[in-house]
Amino acid sequence: MTYCLAIKVNKGVVFASDSRTNAGVDYIATYSKMTRFVWPGERVIVLLTSGSLATSQAVVNAINRDLENTDSEFTLRSGKHLHQVAEYVGKLSQQEQQRHEKAMEKSGHSAESSFILGGQIAGRPPEIFMIYPQGNFVSTSNETPYLQIGENKYGKPILDRIISPATSLEDAARCAIVSLDSTIRSNISVGPPIELAMINTNALEAPFHMTLTMNSPMYKSLQKQWTQGLKRTFNRLPRFEWEKS
Amino acid sequence: MTYCLAIKVNKGVVFASDSRTNAGVDYIATYSKMTRFVWPGERVIVLLTSGSLATSQAVVNAINRDLENTDSEFTLRSGKHLHQVAEYVGKLSQQEQQRHEKAMEKSGHSAESSFILGGQIAGRPPEIFMIYPQGNFVSTSNETPYLQIGENKYGKPILDRIISPATSLEDAARCAIVSLDSTIRSNISVGPPIELAMINTNALEAPFHMTLTMNSPMYKSLQKQWTQGLKRTFNRLPRFEWEKS
Repeated sequence: MTYCLAIKVNKGVVFASDSRTNAGVDYIATYSKMTRFVWPGERVIVLLTSGSLATSQAVVNAINRDLENTDSEFTLRSGKHLHQVAEYVGKLSQQEQQRHEKAMEKSGHSAESSFILGGQIAGRPPEIFMIYPQGNFVSTSNETPYLQIGENKYGKPILDRIISPATSLEDAARCAIVSLDSTIRSNISVGPPIELAMINTNALEAPFHMTLTMNSPMYKSLQKQWTQGLKRTFNRLPRFEWEKS
Repeated sequence: MTYCLAIKVNKGVVFASDSRTNAGVDYIATYSKMTRFVWPGERVIVLLTSGSLATSQAVVNAINRDLENTDSEFTLRSGKHLHQVAEYVGKLSQQEQQRHEKAMEKSGHSAESSFILGGQIAGRPPEIFMIYPQGNFVSTSNETPYLQIGENKYGKPILDRIISPATSLEDAARCAIVSLDSTIRSNISVGPPIELAMINTNALEAPFHMTLTMNSPMYKSLQKQWTQGLKRTFNRLPRFEWEKS
């Protein structure tokens, strides 16, 4: 499995992803699930992938193929609206899935992939979309300013408690790390390193990008402080009647 | 759906359950999912249920029927070991499921139920078991001293961070409430009131039992303090380099 998420706040967008891929528990590997496309001053797009690694890689290859071909009908760079770009990625995903669907079903596997696509096109606000395996997609709302793909349940409670559109970009990034860390602790199919990308609204430049391994000082101190803080908070919770005397 | 859990610590066992049942999102209702059986000085057994409400209720009815019949081969009261009692409940569950399996499958529904059964029989240590829909079951380990049924992912990270066999019974109960509260916030199919039962090792008396509604002072203040503590902890997490200047 996988766990990726994107958070849209007023100040910009945060993308975060784990790096574990697996074909059963007896074959796990580390792959980046985050691809960044940047045309400075023009558009910035980040793509997160979950599901079949073959489909995810094929979609990224198809995106790059279309960008290189001068006669492509539509490319990541040509769509005027980000929702058109999401539609295009959904279509590529469906095409790639259909090519292998029958063989995959025959062997009891799924060729399905989900994507989060987000970024900003000059002159328009930043947006994020979750693209379903079926090719259709949804965006965020003020009440739910984040999107998740993959193993999304373990890391949801902290997002629901912390994130609102007014959250700072850095706080959104910290919350994404905590959300991923909680998932990594509870689910072996989600694993480090954690990749993080942040884009500032209207900057239209390469996203700030970092990779947090288990040994990264920031990840280690964040893990430690979060665990200690949770324990401190836990130890101060209200007592039962009989504990008070 | 449902979310129930049991935590076994050195001092005793905590059982906790939500109370929402649903047949799709357009029909939800409130039912207790916890049944307590007490023979003071002899044995205390608590049963938590998830899955098909019809199967769960039928199993509880069958348990009571066998207890009333003087010629029953085996009852909740006759098993010498708690694992024999778990085996018996698994068998009842399979019997009830098989009675309605075909009709349920025909309409695209499942008659499956899962159970957590725990307690203590005089002269033996307390134990807890998770009984699968197939009738087989597992117990806990020192490393994983808790069992969950139903919507178990949202509330797992806090258990993984807090619970060990040395945790006090009251802390285990508070952790169960936090685990349920996180799930209730993130998943509409899990809902209050929260039922809590606690048995002290070797007490062999009726479990301490309480029902926490949304308006219970303890639940309200625990929710408030947990949310505030999380936010305080979150606000103290390490800064990114550029935030430090």
